[in-house]
Amino acid sequence: MATLNLDTLTAAFADIETITDPAQVAKLSQDYHTFSPVLVPKLAGKVGDIVVRPANEAEVIKVAATCAKLRIPVTVRGAGTGNYGQCVPMHGGVILDMTKMHEILWVKPAVARVEAGVKLAALDKKAREIGWEMRMAPSTYRTATIGGFIAGGSGGIGSIQYGLLGDRGNLLGLRVVTLEDEPRIIELRGDDVQKVNHAWGINGIITRLELPLAPAYPWAEVIVTFDDFMTAAKFGYALGIADGMMKKLISVFASPIPQYFHALHEYIPQGKHPAFLMVAEPSLEFLPGLVQQYGGEITYQKPAQDAGKGTHLAEFTWNHTTLHARIVDSSITYLQSIFPPDASLQLVEHLYHHFGDEVMMHLEFFRVRGAVIAGALQLVRYTTEERLNEIIRYHEAQGVMIANPHTYIIEDGGRKVIDPEQLKFKEMVDPYGLMNPGKSKVLEFHNNS
Amino acid sequence: MATLNLDTLTAAFADIETITDPAQVAKLSQDYHTFSPVLVPKLAGKVGDIVVRPANEAEVIKVAATCAKLRIPVTVRGAGTGNYGQCVPMHGGVILDMTKMHEILWVKPAVARVEAGVKLAALDKKAREIGWEMRMAPSTYRTATIGGFIAGGSGGIGSIQYGLLGDRGNLLGLRVVTLEDEPRIIELRGDDVQKVNHAWGINGIITRLELPLAPAYPWAEVIVTFDDFMTAAKFGYALGIADGMMKKLISVFASPIPQYFHALHEYIPQGKHPAFLMVAEPSLEFLPGLVQQYGGEITYQKPAQDAGKGTHLAEFTWNHTTLHARIVDSSITYLQSIFPPDASLQLVEHLYHHFGDEVMMHLEFFRVRGAVIAGALQLVRYTTEERLNEIIRYHEAQGVMIANPHTYIIEDGGRKVIDPEQLKFKEMVDPYGLMNPGKSKVLEFHNNS
Repeated sequence: MATLNLDTLTAAFADIETITDPAQVAKLSQDYHTFSPVLVPKLAGKVGDIVVRPANEAEVIKVAATCAKLRIPVTVRGAGTGNYGQCVPMHGGVILDMTKMHEILWVKPAVARVEAGVKLAALDKKAREIGWEMRMAPSTYRTATIGGFIAGGSGGIGSIQYGLLGDRGNLLGLRVVTLEDEPRIIELRGDDVQKVNHAWGINGIITRLELPLAPAYPWAEVIVTFDDFMTAAKFGYALGIADGMMKKLISVFASPIPQYFHALHEYIPQGKHPAFLMVAEPSLEFLPGLVQQYGGEITYQKPAQDAGKGTHLAEFTWNHTTLHARIVDSSITYLQSIFPPDASLQLVEHLYHHFGDEVMMHLEFFRVRGAVIAGALQLVRYTTEERLNEIIRYHEAQGVMIANPHTYIIEDGGRKVIDPEQLKFKEMVDPYGLMNPGKSKVLEFHNNS
Repeated sequence: MATLNLDTLTAAFADIETITDPAQVAKLSQDYHTFSPVLVPKLAGKVGDIVVRPANEAEVIKVAATCAKLRIPVTVRGAGTGNYGQCVPMHGGVILDMTKMHEILWVKPAVARVEAGVKLAALDKKAREIGWEMRMAPSTYRTATIGGFIAGGSGGIGSIQYGLLGDRGNLLGLRVVTLEDEPRIIELRGDDVQKVNHAWGINGIITRLELPLAPAYPWAEVIVTFDDFMTAAKFGYALGIADGMMKKLISVFASPIPQYFHALHEYIPQGKHPAFLMVAEPSLEFLPGLVQQYGGEITYQKPAQDAGKGTHLAEFTWNHTTLHARIVDSSITYLQSIFPPDASLQLVEHLYHHFGDEVMMHLEFFRVRGAVIAGALQLVRYTTEERLNEIIRYHEAQGVMIANPHTYIIEDGGRKVIDPEQLKFKEMVDPYGLMNPGKSKVLEFHNNS
C-alpha cells in the first residue's frame, strides 16, 4: 500500500460521508471477535485509516475507483455483528460502512430485493406486511445487515426449515462493485451467487441482494423444561423431524447455561434443561403431546400477537447465548460444531458427559442436506489457547465438524478452503487484492510501498 | 343385520336425497380397487342397498340414528377415488355419499375448515385467493374429497415438503357423527385427531375437517430426462434434499413407463428416464445447475401462470401413473413401497435391476420422519396372485416396506395393525360395528338377522 495520505483521501471522497475521528474509526474497525480470547490479542490495534459511508451505488463506485487507483485496502462492514474478525482491517485503509444503503428496493410474495445495508429486522417488518419474512436470520437480526449476513453468516433462526445460507436457492441474486481501476457493476444470479456468497467481503463490494422469502407464520415462543439434558436434546430432535409441524427455532441448553439468562429465570427452575422454541400457531396444538411424550413441561408461552413485546426468546439463542453468558462471565468463550446426522444423538451424549462443566452444551437443530442435525455452540470455560485447541481436536477426532471461531484465517474456519470458483472470481473483481486483505493463506497482501 | 326393508328406509330418509336405482347404487358401491386384479374377484358383486346423500349434518345425524336403530351397515364415501376397496360395502346397507356436503366453512392464512365432501381442488382454488393451498394432495385432487383423503389417503403431491397425512400437525381437527342410538357430534383436535385420521371410515362419520395450509408458491412444472434410470433417481433425491429449493413434486419414472403418457411423448424421447417436478418459481433458477450436475436435460417447462391450462404433470404421478398405464395395458397392476432412508439408493438400484421389465420402477420422493426417502408405486406386469405375492415378499425381505394395495383387510395393508386408540374410539362411536364392516380381522361383523 502506498503511504496513505488522509488529505488525499478525504479530498477524493469529498462528496461522500467520511469519519476520521480516531475513536470512531477504531470502533468501526471492530466486530464481535471479542467473543474469542484467542482472536483478541491477534487483532489488537488493527484499525482502519478512514471510514467511508456511501449513500448509494454511485458513491461506492467512486470509493472503489479511488481505492483501486491508490491501492488502498478496503474492509467492508455492515453492523459488525460477526464473530470472526472479518470486519477488522489487517492493513488499515478504508473501512467501507454500508449501513447508509438501506433501501428495500421491492418486496413481492416469496422474493425481496434490498440494498446491502438493510437490517434484517427492517426487511422482515416490510415483508410481513404482505405475509412473508426472511427464511433465516442470525440472533443479531435487529442490528445485523443483510449484506453482512450473506458475506459472513451461515444460517440461524429458520434454518430448521430452510437449511443454510449456502444451500442452493437461499440467495437468489446479488450485485457487486469491483475493485478495478474502472469499477464495474456485476450482477450474479442462480448458482453464480456462490462466487460471492459467504466470501467474507473479499469478492467485490455487495451493493444489492435478492432473497427468497418464507411464509410469515404466526410464531409462538415457547420454553419447555426437562429434568435431563439428553431427554431435552431428543425432544428437540423429535420436533425437528416432525414434518407436519412448522417451526423456526429449536434450541436446547444444558444446565447451568440458563443461569446466564436473567430475564428468563422465573421460567427455568434451577438445574432444569430447557428447549427454546418458535412454533407456528397452527402447529401449537400438537406441542403438548410431544412434550408429554418426553416428560417435559411447558413453562412459558408467548402468542404470536405479542411477538413485538417483551422478551424475545430468539435473542437468547445461537450466538446470543454466548453473548449473555459473557455478560455474566467474560472468561467464557465458545465453539461452533456440526454433529453428524444421528437420530440417537450418541455423539452429543458422549461429549456432553466427556467435558462436563468445562464445555456446556448448547444445541441448535437445523437442516443439512435434507436431514435434521444437531449443531452446537458450546460454551467453553476458557483457560488457555492450548486447552481450547485440545478440546477442538478431541471433537474433530470424534467426527464433529468444528467451524472454528477462534481464527480470522478463512481456511482455518468453517469451510477449510476457499472455493476455486470464488478465487477465480476474486482475480477478476479484485485484481490488486485490496479487499479484506490478510485474512487468507492463499491470498497474500503485498504492501507495495 | 336385520333384513333390509327398502321401503322402511326410504320412509325414514324421506327428506333426504336417496338413490335406489340399482345401476346407480352399484356404481356408487365401487372405487378404484379395480387397479388390483386380486381385489376385483374378491369384491365382485358387493353392492349397497341404498345410497343416501345428506346435505348437512342434521341429515347425517338422522341417517346415523336410523342405521343404528335398524343395525344397518354404513359405508361412507367421498368421490370413491381410493384404490383399496374401502368404499365397497361388504355387507350391503347404506352407502353414505358425502359429496353434497361441500361447503368451505372458512379459509384463513395457514388454516381452513371444510365440510367432508369438499373437493381438494375446490379448497385449493379458494385458499389460493389469499395465498395458501393444501399442504398435500393425491393425484386425484380434481375429484377426490377431503373427507375421503383423510379417511383413506396417506400423502401425495406436497409430501416432499410436509411429510405424510398421519404426521403430527397435518390435520388440525375433525368432527364426526357417531353411529349410536342417539348419535352425537364429537369434535377432535390436536393429537386426538389420530383416532379418526386414516381410519378407513370405521370410526364415525366425518362431517367437518380443519386443515393446515401451505403457502401457495407459484409452481412451475418441469420434465427433466436422463439416459440412465439411477442417475434420474439420484437427481430426484438431490433435489429432495436441497433445503433451499421449494418443491411440491419429485416423481421419477424408469423407461418404458413414459410410453403410457401419450400427452407427453414429445417431451420424453424413447428410452429416456424422466423426472416430473413441481418447483417454486423463486427456486427455478437453481434447477439448471442441478440438472447439469446429473447430466439431465430439461425438455419441458410450464410456468406457474399457465398452471390452469393444458396438461397437468401432477396427473401423471402417484397413482395416476398406474391409471395411465392401465388405460394402455389393463394387465398392469402396481405396488406401494417405502424404501429405507439411504442417500445412495442402493436398494432401489438392486430392485430396479432384479425384476427388470416385470416391475417397472416409479419413484415418488417424500419426507418420512424428517428424512427424504424414496417411495415407489412400481408398475407390475401381472401374471398370477402367487407371483405378485412372491414379488411383494422379495421386496419385504430386502427391507422395503410394502403398503399392500391388493387387500381390503386393514391389517394386511400399510399399517399392519389398527391403532389401539382407534379401536377404543371405535367401541364408543360405533357400538354396533356398523361402519364399513368386514374390512378388519379384529372387527368381525355379525349379521344379527
